[in-house]
Amino acid sequence: MSHATLTAAGLAALLGPDPTGGDGPAYRLLATRLRTLIGDGRVPSGARLPSERQLTDALAVSRTTVTRAYAVLRDSGYLTSRAGSGSVARVPGDPIPTHGPLLSRPAGEDVIDLTYAALPATPGVLEAYERALTELPRHLAVPGYHPVGLSETRAAVARWFERRGLPTDPDQIVVTNGANAALAAVTAALAKPGQHAVMETPTYPNAIHTLRAAGTRPIGVPLAGDDWDLTSIRRTLARSRAVVGYALPDFHNPTGALLSETGRAELADIYDRAGAWLVVDETFADLALDGQQQTGPTALHGAGRVISIGGTSKAFWGGLRVGWARLPQDPDLVDRVVRARHNLDLGTPVLEQLVAATLLDDAATLVPRRVEILRAQRSALVDALRNRLPEWQFRMPSGGVNLWVTLPKARSSALAAAGTGLGLRLAAGGRFAVDGGFESHLRLPYTLPPDRLIEAVERMALAWASTAEAGGPQDPWPPLVA
Amino acid sequence: MSHATLTAAGLAALLGPDPTGGDGPAYRLLATRLRTLIGDGRVPSGARLPSERQLTDALAVSRTTVTRAYAVLRDSGYLTSRAGSGSVARVPGDPIPTHGPLLSRPAGEDVIDLTYAALPATPGVLEAYERALTELPRHLAVPGYHPVGLSETRAAVARWFERRGLPTDPDQIVVTNGANAALAAVTAALAKPGQHAVMETPTYPNAIHTLRAAGTRPIGVPLAGDDWDLTSIRRTLARSRAVVGYALPDFHNPTGALLSETGRAELADIYDRAGAWLVVDETFADLALDGQQQTGPTALHGAGRVISIGGTSKAFWGGLRVGWARLPQDPDLVDRVVRARHNLDLGTPVLEQLVAATLLDDAATLVPRRVEILRAQRSALVDALRNRLPEWQFRMPSGGVNLWVTLPKARSSALAAAGTGLGLRLAAGGRFAVDGGFESHLRLPYTLPPDRLIEAVERMALAWASTAEAGGPQDPWPPLVA
Repeated sequence: MSHATLTAAGLAALLGPDPTGGDGPAYRLLATRLRTLIGDGRVPSGARLPSERQLTDALAVSRTTVTRAYAVLRDSGYLTSRAGSGSVARVPGDPIPTHGPLLSRPAGEDVIDLTYAALPATPGVLEAYERALTELPRHLAVPGYHPVGLSETRAAVARWFERRGLPTDPDQIVVTNGANAALAAVTAALAKPGQHAVMETPTYPNAIHTLRAAGTRPIGVPLAGDDWDLTSIRRTLARSRAVVGYALPDFHNPTGALLSETGRAELADIYDRAGAWLVVDETFADLALDGQQQTGPTALHGAGRVISIGGTSKAFWGGLRVGWARLPQDPDLVDRVVRARHNLDLGTPVLEQLVAATLLDDAATLVPRRVEILRAQRSALVDALRNRLPEWQFRMPSGGVNLWVTLPKARSSALAAAGTGLGLRLAAGGRFAVDGGFESHLRLPYTLPPDRLIEAVERMALAWASTAEAGGPQDPWPPLVA
Repeated sequence: MSHATLTAAGLAALLGPDPTGGDGPAYRLLATRLRTLIGDGRVPSGARLPSERQLTDALAVSRTTVTRAYAVLRDSGYLTSRAGSGSVARVPGDPIPTHGPLLSRPAGEDVIDLTYAALPATPGVLEAYERALTELPRHLAVPGYHPVGLSETRAAVARWFERRGLPTDPDQIVVTNGANAALAAVTAALAKPGQHAVMETPTYPNAIHTLRAAGTRPIGVPLAGDDWDLTSIRRTLARSRAVVGYALPDFHNPTGALLSETGRAELADIYDRAGAWLVVDETFADLALDGQQQTGPTALHGAGRVISIGGTSKAFWGGLRVGWARLPQDPDLVDRVVRARHNLDLGTPVLEQLVAATLLDDAATLVPRRVEILRAQRSALVDALRNRLPEWQFRMPSGGVNLWVTLPKARSSALAAAGTGLGLRLAAGGRFAVDGGFESHLRLPYTLPPDRLIEAVERMALAWASTAEAGGPQDPWPPLVA
């Protein structure tokens, strides 16, 4: 199995400013921080670290500090050295158990479920169903199989891209049963089982599982704090010979990060040069919350190896299961994806496609209502957390539906377990890791009404207190998910 | 790659009565008939034939006849002998090209498309949408992800099974995006890539492709004329160690054959003994056309290794993409299938599920209307064929939507090609073969209005005449799809 290759600059970004600051010898403080990153999954187990010399330069510390820090990590089993591979991060002991997909489960009346990030329907969705129903009769006269999509829906999706500044022919659109189904079809069409797929870590858990189910082997390249470590992505692509990648540049799930215009251009260029396909998930693209202008679609860049996927679930309603893939102008490629989708399902329901077309054309009216709701909910969650759990850290996301919280202790799994007893379902940070870890993180979607979010934080504070009471090391050393 | 194992009785059934009758030496006539079966795919390339002694007994001919017939086949490359495997059928020359899935494509106004077997919506479908829409508002208040299915839809599917005499708990039902999506999910949950899957040949082409896409290796066991060759299925399961099988006992697609009650019991028992899962596709189960009583579901039999899949496409409308899997009582098994489906799509649209629940509960009223329409269309097609192409042979199917025609010459592909120029799309017999062949067969769905079917037969007669004029051998030797 191939893994990520981390650059010195990428690792320096993960370490943050002053990586040797604090009480005690510099090499030991650096080793502790590196160990935390490895134990926490931000440096994935199996990732190649930069050489001592490269890291010395990037951190502007003494060579001895880095050499001794690496030695400490090697002695404690967090680093192995292999000829030809340099230093490789390792989590000592048993492999971290794999986690299941994030699955919505029926919850009792008083259970608050924050494991998945989805909202009730936007106001206006019912009217869209009613309008679509008036168009249904003429479709009832034909068999109703449309594996590529209804022409009116493909056209509406194409217009959605046009409004975002990306010229699109309806022939480039395949309508699917949601964005995840688009990922499944595209991966089945473009990758062979056993080939690698590069993605961010943390990332959307269902994408990890869908890529694995398609037989590919995902490699997680860590986000460098709030930004993309493009050099590591480039190196990882080259070393792994991955044929496909998956990225969330538009209000990344779970972190909320947004990739800049120049970053998008560079990312597209990296995939062009690697001769690999980049699947960009634009599920959250419409949900800019601070009135800012939308960043242009990633497919504006590069020489035609970017495939955009998206759907109506986040901006409108998850119960409407319509998604799409926008492919480069290449009828043969469209044909391959349609054939692959046909092995998974034979088409998207006609009425749902009509509803989606209506909603997309009304997006300029409907999405602002959604944004308004999300802003209020984000405020409620943020205020409640600052009030009740002030030691929890997070960056205010400028879009999407998630807060990515850094806990003061690496106890995300214990917190989620404690929550269960208090009528609270939480997705621990590890759920979002390609190779395990993220035990000091937690994804909190602000997809419930303010009063529910406030109540959720109350329960979280209780759960957090109970995990702290349970004892255990007070130092920042991360207990591993054994 | 493993293949079917044919019993002497199964092969005798395929050969039909008097396999050595006609002008010329008996061994040569037998060899010609065997060659036709192999070239035509009814005996799949790679299938193990019975020993000479077994076949001699089954046919009640002289041992010399069989020995010499096998020798002729060996000399002409249609049979190979391998130590430990006995005699194996082979098509000489290049492997037969694989065919794509049956995909609905947009057709011009005057093109008659008989490549897929689907009808316009049944009268009553629009009303079901209208009724479902009145139930939608309460669902809009929640996120709308239901990877297992809405409880009301699961209950309606369970009632559908109950009415067919099979006690079913709603917890046994997973609602999917059509029957094919149910097959994809069940296969992903129960079979590992590389394992074998046993199915009938001919069979539903999209099932072949879905099983292949899931990484399994389909093995086709030929139908013995109008019946199932259960002994060959048993032997093939044992030899291939297949973990999963797929069967169409209810108005088999494409042949229309119906497996008897005792046959179903035996089939279920065979899978029990093999420790394999049998996926029974009941897509056509509701469509008994001659007023006969429905045969009970196959899952009534055996010790719990039968999984029933079905959907609303054939009985109601294909544009409503709702299907299901009915699993044995085992929460763990249900969980595995739900997780596998979650990697393909995240759930079935809420409104579609509400429509399906309504339609299933109204099936007793609505399905007879569908049956009435199909009976009229079947008559129109049958009459037109008998009139215009009296040399084409078929058995009148007692249910389903397809006629399986035996052409007087093995020219199905040429006929389909000639049809294209005449505004007629046909699915040649080879599309339904697991391992190629069926060149003297053609599936004709009676899913269009009578006038369109009559016009289709006119065009077919023209296309057929043009392929006959094109010359070629007049003897029954099958030209191979090279």
